[in-house]
Amino acid sequence: MKFNRNIENITPSKSMAMSQLAKELKKNDPQIIDLSIGEPDFDTPEVITEEAIKWMKNGFTHYTTGPGLPELRKRIAKKLLDENGIVQDPEGIIVTPGGKFAIYLAVATLCNAGDEVICLAPYWVSYPSICQSLGVTPVEIELDPADNYRIDEKTLEDAITDKTRMIIINYPNNPTGLILHKEEMAAIKAVMQRHPEVVLLSDEMYERIIFDGNKNVSPAADEEIKDRVITVNGFSKSVAMTGWRAGYMASSTEIAKVAGRFFGHTLTQTCGFVQKACVVALDQLGDMEMMRLSYEKRRNMFVEGLNSIPGIHCIVPEGAFYAWTGFDESLLKKLPGYVPGKKEQSEIVSEWLLRQCKVSSVPGIANGVTRGTFLRFCFAAGEDDLERAISQIAAGVEALG
Amino acid sequence: MKFNRNIENITPSKSMAMSQLAKELKKNDPQIIDLSIGEPDFDTPEVITEEAIKWMKNGFTHYTTGPGLPELRKRIAKKLLDENGIVQDPEGIIVTPGGKFAIYLAVATLCNAGDEVICLAPYWVSYPSICQSLGVTPVEIELDPADNYRIDEKTLEDAITDKTRMIIINYPNNPTGLILHKEEMAAIKAVMQRHPEVVLLSDEMYERIIFDGNKNVSPAADEEIKDRVITVNGFSKSVAMTGWRAGYMASSTEIAKVAGRFFGHTLTQTCGFVQKACVVALDQLGDMEMMRLSYEKRRNMFVEGLNSIPGIHCIVPEGAFYAWTGFDESLLKKLPGYVPGKKEQSEIVSEWLLRQCKVSSVPGIANGVTRGTFLRFCFAAGEDDLERAISQIAAGVEALG
Repeated sequence: MKFNRNIENITPSKSMAMSQLAKELKKNDPQIIDLSIGEPDFDTPEVITEEAIKWMKNGFTHYTTGPGLPELRKRIAKKLLDENGIVQDPEGIIVTPGGKFAIYLAVATLCNAGDEVICLAPYWVSYPSICQSLGVTPVEIELDPADNYRIDEKTLEDAITDKTRMIIINYPNNPTGLILHKEEMAAIKAVMQRHPEVVLLSDEMYERIIFDGNKNVSPAADEEIKDRVITVNGFSKSVAMTGWRAGYMASSTEIAKVAGRFFGHTLTQTCGFVQKACVVALDQLGDMEMMRLSYEKRRNMFVEGLNSIPGIHCIVPEGAFYAWTGFDESLLKKLPGYVPGKKEQSEIVSEWLLRQCKVSSVPGIANGVTRGTFLRFCFAAGEDDLERAISQIAAGVEALG
Repeated sequence: MKFNRNIENITPSKSMAMSQLAKELKKNDPQIIDLSIGEPDFDTPEVITEEAIKWMKNGFTHYTTGPGLPELRKRIAKKLLDENGIVQDPEGIIVTPGGKFAIYLAVATLCNAGDEVICLAPYWVSYPSICQSLGVTPVEIELDPADNYRIDEKTLEDAITDKTRMIIINYPNNPTGLILHKEEMAAIKAVMQRHPEVVLLSDEMYERIIFDGNKNVSPAADEEIKDRVITVNGFSKSVAMTGWRAGYMASSTEIAKVAGRFFGHTLTQTCGFVQKACVVALDQLGDMEMMRLSYEKRRNMFVEGLNSIPGIHCIVPEGAFYAWTGFDESLLKKLPGYVPGKKEQSEIVSEWLLRQCKVSSVPGIANGVTRGTFLRFCFAAGEDDLERAISQIAAGVEALG
């Protein structure tokens, strides 16, 4: 069978693959702890579910306005202003079935085949595949772990060519948990101002989950570049609505107009009563804060636990719910199948952790990382499981001698 | 702003645009009857809604398996076997947020930019736009109204080039309501057997709504070509679930494997509790039959009414819920703005109907039709509205003199 060459060659999501494998193994071995999937362990707050139920029962099961219910677009615009400092026209918002499709929509609308999109590694797993599926070239720039993955102006500038059309950033970052700092924003802005053809896609999916009183920067809040910034966000992580599939893309109305036509011919609209629930979801600041505090508590415990294991060092995440965990050479040397300098080293560690320590993770190679050997653990899991995971990893490391 | 050239040039859906205009006008003029949108006027059956509510309340709001819940894929496979004679591997099914995305998914997966896709006019409005958005060339073949839009082998064969990759068919057809007959299937099969590179996309969205004991043919039921047939169907029309967004693509597992990877990187999955409701929806044969009978009754009344108006002739639809209505030259001549042989004649008639008779419709040009002057009316509306529409059109025609 002959396929679309761009699509035939994309690889399945490695985090999903690891999670599937963990689920399979868990059937025969209840000791397995799955920390690979990136998902809140909370159910959706009841008030949100009840809102959807109310509208379903009211017969709100028919077609609605394509790009989004007017009340939801308005509520999102208010949220962006209140919480992120973004002055957003509701007409520039398109409500999508999940943030992932908002990213696809933005790349598809703004890039032509052959264009280049800069992805800063560690990146979220789907960016390069989304680009590839559209015949767009993902240009991966690997940030420096020794510099705490800071974006610096020169590295970014050097990656720009006459084919560069877009830069994708993701803060709070999946997998590192780092946020976007002011100096980094200044670096991005300086590069964008030198290159007026370049647009910025800012994926802010974890922006409600930030610790220690930190504050993430939203690039669209900058009036000078906002017309070239597309903000993507959603409901999956902030209010535990992963399975509902609801996200959005916010941009200038000029961009949204073209994207909306494409959206109309691919998805028509996002489920109506899900959108009604999303209006209410944005008001649940109490629930969001409760969840955030719970993640912060687990972060403290889990990261401290990991850092107490010899040969393992874990960045303290500023946001999101991932522990980005490095494995020292001294430890790696003891692992079966170790080859110095091997790119796929993180996969070997991840496999060893799953088989020996019975803890699943996502290998850093999935996030485009080859500098150092890192794994991503999701700490949105039960505290018991997190404690058990630390013990099992510690025991596994000790057994290596 | 520079956009993706393929996407920048697609036009918004004309049926959606007409429906929006009708809604706008209706705000100030309650006399307006909207027969432009293609949507059941029934609410979703309660048992389906209750199933979704049950799972939402059970906390089934998390990630599920990407291509579709195993129980739904199995239930769809059973439906395809029982109702359509298709032997379908559940692993070849991908559950999408609406049938439209299933069509996009199939075209994206199987066609490369520059390939040709044959669209038989009258066609459903989105096919050419979906192709264009992917850089794929839609090749429109207009079937002959004098031959009741029959597919004949020679016409199809003549349209095949060395770039032809796919043929899209849609039966029961939106807008004509005609079904796929055995002789037409034989013609398609003969052409496909001569051209082993060509795949067939069969959009069977209205296959539960067929009148007079007719039987639609499902091409994937043919063992000799089934590996090259993709069947698209959904829940919107058969069980009144338009706003839920649920459909599916059924194909060989080879095709589904590649399509599934792309689906995973664009949409992850379709909403979990919506999928749970879909499992139950397929069992609601009683509700489907009740709706079907109701459409049949309205069809009889509406088509007869239209045919009683001088200068108007309406095909008797074999399925779906559209009246495909022709306007004779004798009548057109009396209309303001009439230009003999003008391609956009159907738009002039549609506009006149809306302004003068206060009935909205979709002009046939939206379905790629230039032979004759046709409009599509949706008769999934209240009987009172349908009767009033006929009176208002009749009065408008009479007033022309």
